[in-house]
Amino acid sequence: MNALGRHIIAEIYGCDAEILNDREKIEKIMVDAALMAGAEVREVAFHKFSPLGVSGVVVISESHLTIHTWPELGYAAVDVFTCGDHINPWDACNYMTEKFGATHITATEVKRGLFDQPVQVKVSSL
Amino acid sequence: MNALGRHIIAEIYGCDAEILNDREKIEKIMVDAALMAGAEVREVAFHKFSPLGVSGVVVISESHLTIHTWPELGYAAVDVFTCGDHINPWDACNYMTEKFGATHITATEVKRGLFDQPVQVKVSSL
Repeated sequence: MNALGRHIIAEIYGCDAEILNDREKIEKIMVDAALMAGAEVREVAFHKFSPLGVSGVVVISESHLTIHTWPELGYAAVDVFTCGDHINPWDACNYMTEKFGATHITATEVKRGLFDQPVQVKVSSL
Repeated sequence: MNALGRHIIAEIYGCDAEILNDREKIEKIMVDAALMAGAEVREVAFHKFSPLGVSGVVVISESHLTIHTWPELGYAAVDVFTCGDHINPWDACNYMTEKFGATHITATEVKRGLFDQPVQVKVSSL
């Protein structure tokens, strides 16, 4: 079976609360994580919640990265979904974990779109 | 244990290929799915790929909805992630499945952010 995508569901704990509440820092870390993994960034949208928390998404040609943070718990819910063979989603995930100063992480990789035929990869955007 | 969020990972098959390749239709279905479930839409970003496929995200106050489509396979990879008790992510998921004309779906709900203390919900955005 061929998978169209790889999706990492990451529960990241013990993060730096200040970073998790800083929209600009989170956005930079997420974009850098995408670029560092070799992804092509298409769209970036982040929100700061009051009094605490940041949510955001980085849409990449190869799928997406998302985050939702609870600074008061030192916790971030992160997803990294990539298609194609030239990107390793764990590179982005590990980069974020390090930048958030996390003490531990629980992560699972889910294969998305399992087909018995050769897979196609979307790479060009209109 | 209390979960901060509920995350549905949906593999949607046998969808209408024309809908899956129509950026505007997909965007409307996703936004309607979010609103119909009672979510507050914050940000919308969609891309059409050449020759086939659409990727997009709807950022909601309660987390996000994402989609990546392969019209040639009739397949859509959908995620619905919601926080708080006032939204049922399955409402949004089922709405999309119906609108895509899907013949079958494989979906799993993952609890995100499990803590033994009472959970907090981010509802107001700056």
